[in-house]
Amino acid sequence: MKELRDYVLTIPDFPEPGIMFRDITTVMKDADGLKLAIDTMQDLVKDLDFDVVVGAEARGFCFSAAIAYNMHKPLVLIRKKGKLPRETVSVDYDLEYGKATMEIHKDDILPGQKVLIVDDLIATGGTTKAMINLVEQLGAQAAGVVVMMELKGLKGREFISPCPLFSAISYEGK
Amino acid sequence: MKELRDYVLTIPDFPEPGIMFRDITTVMKDADGLKLAIDTMQDLVKDLDFDVVVGAEARGFCFSAAIAYNMHKPLVLIRKKGKLPRETVSVDYDLEYGKATMEIHKDDILPGQKVLIVDDLIATGGTTKAMINLVEQLGAQAAGVVVMMELKGLKGREFISPCPLFSAISYEGK
Repeated sequence: MKELRDYVLTIPDFPEPGIMFRDITTVMKDADGLKLAIDTMQDLVKDLDFDVVVGAEARGFCFSAAIAYNMHKPLVLIRKKGKLPRETVSVDYDLEYGKATMEIHKDDILPGQKVLIVDDLIATGGTTKAMINLVEQLGAQAAGVVVMMELKGLKGREFISPCPLFSAISYEGK
Repeated sequence: MKELRDYVLTIPDFPEPGIMFRDITTVMKDADGLKLAIDTMQDLVKDLDFDVVVGAEARGFCFSAAIAYNMHKPLVLIRKKGKLPRETVSVDYDLEYGKATMEIHKDDILPGQKVLIVDDLIATGGTTKAMINLVEQLGAQAAGVVVMMELKGLKGREFISPCPLFSAISYEGK
């Protein structure tokens, strides 16, 4: 039987020289791969106590929506600046290659709620930490983060500590 | 019992004066709303013959991923320019307020495959038509389009004809 990592394609030097890009579109474009990815992620958080699923634009939307639907939880979107129509709070953060701002609706999460953050990937943890920051700005608590893929060499797990991280696949390198 | 349209919030004059923005984040942030949206969309296409689900960045990823998972189909992503790591084909298109380019991996869909296009919204149909164009560039066929919301006044249904359109909610206006 194929393992989840068998569906991942590695592309050297994309989008910049020196970066080993792990292409997860090859996981999703296989019905069995997609099912295995989502089932594995859900299984990792089945005992976690949370009220709301949060997903970040763009690929995070894929996994967060399927997981929220399957676990019958609300889905709250974190989007790039200017995309959300109601009042937001925002955070600036560093990407592996660039800078950006993300936003969340001010009233989409209530103070005291426990949040599961879902994303495709954790690398340095910059994006994930920014998502935790948004959740905390709303007075809520990041109960955990689940990702399809962890690039261990970039130490995102330490960077977001003490928030627990669950990853369906991890790679030693960057 | 609440209907799907009861979960939609209407925001006048966003992102520009004169546009009635239908906020679907209020559907998704309710576990029952999210379930109802996805179940309704799936029910609309349950008798359609298709091999692959295609979703467009960004909100289209939410619905397409959940539907692909539930119906055990491959999920292929259409992304904004420069986001996909492998060889792509692209299309330029007009938005309701602006211009953009979208891309699809050249080998993610095979010639002759039947494709279900999933999106959150159809307005003028510009984005949807561009997605159909990408599918056809790969020698595949758009078997149908399913959206959560149709803005009938903008005549997207006519614009993408003869491709069949299924919408979970429709609004008469723009």
